Amino acid sequence: MEALAAERRSQVCLGLDPDPSALGPDSAPDADRAGTAERAAAAVTEHCRSLIASAGPACVAVKPQLACFERLGAPGWGALTEVSRAAREAGLLVVADGKRGDVPVTAEAYGQALVGETQTPWGVVEGLCADAFTANPLLGGDAIDPLVDAAAAAGAGVFLLVRTSNPGAAALQDADLGGAPLRERLAELVAERASRLAGKSGLSGMGAVIGATAPEHLERLRELMPDSIFLLPGVGAQGGRVEDLGAALAPDRPASILVAAARSIAGADDPGAAAEQLRAALWELAHDG
Amino acid sequence: MEALAAERRSQVCLGLDPDPSALGPDSAPDADRAGTAERAAAAVTEHCRSLIASAGPACVAVKPQLACFERLGAPGWGALTEVSRAAREAGLLVVADGKRGDVPVTAEAYGQALVGETQTPWGVVEGLCADAFTANPLLGGDAIDPLVDAAAAAGAGVFLLVRTSNPGAAALQDADLGGAPLRERLAELVAERASRLAGKSGLSGMGAVIGATAPEHLERLRELMPDSIFLLPGVGAQGGRVEDLGAALAPDRPASILVAAARSIAGADDPGAAAEQLRAALWELAHDG
Repeated sequence: MEALAAERRSQVCLGLDPDPSALGPDSAPDADRAGTAERAAAAVTEHCRSLIASAGPACVAVKPQLACFERLGAPGWGALTEVSRAAREAGLLVVADGKRGDVPVTAEAYGQALVGETQTPWGVVEGLCADAFTANPLLGGDAIDPLVDAAAAAGAGVFLLVRTSNPGAAALQDADLGGAPLRERLAELVAERASRLAGKSGLSGMGAVIGATAPEHLERLRELMPDSIFLLPGVGAQGGRVEDLGAALAPDRPASILVAAARSIAGADDPGAAAEQLRAALWELAHDG
Repeated sequence: MEALAAERRSQVCLGLDPDPSALGPDSAPDADRAGTAERAAAAVTEHCRSLIASAGPACVAVKPQLACFERLGAPGWGALTEVSRAAREAGLLVVADGKRGDVPVTAEAYGQALVGETQTPWGVVEGLCADAFTANPLLGGDAIDPLVDAAAAAGAGVFLLVRTSNPGAAALQDADLGGAPLRERLAELVAERASRLAGKSGLSGMGAVIGATAPEHLERLRELMPDSIFLLPGVGAQGGRVEDLGAALAPDRPASILVAAARSIAGADDPGAAAEQLRAALWELAHDG
């Protein structure tokens, strides 16, 4: 991630949250030959490909939102696979955003689905081959470890939810849990595992999701997770501002943040220009700090 | 759920956690005509159908574990859809176990995927049509509400994670959060929404997932959520015991608990007998209490 960010001079992660109801009726190829879900999935794939082509050059990663694909059933999962492949071909990292979390034996299965593979009597079935994925830490350390193991085996990263971007996040995540806010307990779960996904550069692929909508927590969270990459959603449509994100950066490490933007890029008249504007603003923030 | 439980005299929920690596190489139909993932998905479907046929008569619901299907990609999601349909045809409720949770706009998409439908310019795409689903409440009330709305619109249920069955659950869920254990704060999130999914009988489809492995919490959690259905995983392979579950029952309401068992049924020499044994033990517990 660090080399790629330097090469592309970007910390922008293009959020892919396709909404089939907002796509034009002419956007489904092969409309004669397929059912409704297949047509919608084809249109979603085309829409994401087009976004990758226009906004991708200003980005270092894409973040497909799994829910948006799952609502189209099996064809939707097929679209997710295809879009992930297209992003990789465009030189972008893929962050599968599914916020999974389950008991250890099931967490292993999620690891197989997202970054691993599954042995069967008929051969090996490849998973999504994501470069990283988001995960929900509510179940505790033993449920997180199989995900970290899967990521380590695949050379991939994990972003644990630490402080989410929604208005209601504060009620639980900012409440005091045994002497510190819950978000800091979650940050400890990240920090304890940082060495297991450490890259050559010193940055760790054991990362954290922290909403750009609550920048007042960034400084302390960076203290608690000095080596982790922060995935920061919530810029733009949700109200987060680039200029408030300086404290998220580890000193002299531009690649220590990944700023996710979906609606503010996909919804712009010129997605390429919107992504480039965000890229430039972030790159300046990281090199002026 | 209450009428169905009475009719079937059962509170057993058959966990469907298919492991393709454990299936026999002869179990994939149409082996000549399909790729590896398609063969594995066909074998998984067949395995689940066979379990539904043998163990289903002693059960009131099935609980497909989404991770186990997702690891087979789009064909896996197709198998999930097919298995869910087969369960419904056998007269069983379907509890989609994906433990989803995300910011409000994404939670809406999960609602569409699990119990709703998605409008597209080419027509409506049906979701999984589950009767209920599990969800992770870490993101807070505003992220839970769209899931509850989707369930209400579909006449479905939601089971929020309150206290999970894994050994590591205690570290966070039993820690004190502002004066009460986190699990009790999560129980409040359930109780506050119980009236929105209330059934005619007084029981609410706004339920809770509580591991059978920590029965010492059941009495207090039932106090906090008097009307909710408790989904209790962890009996059998994980160490939970039927005789410890009495406190989970709401007085005179056998249908107030749903006991999930996967490995202890699917792994038995005679899955039908194993399910029937669990059914009988639970029914006795509910009518002796």
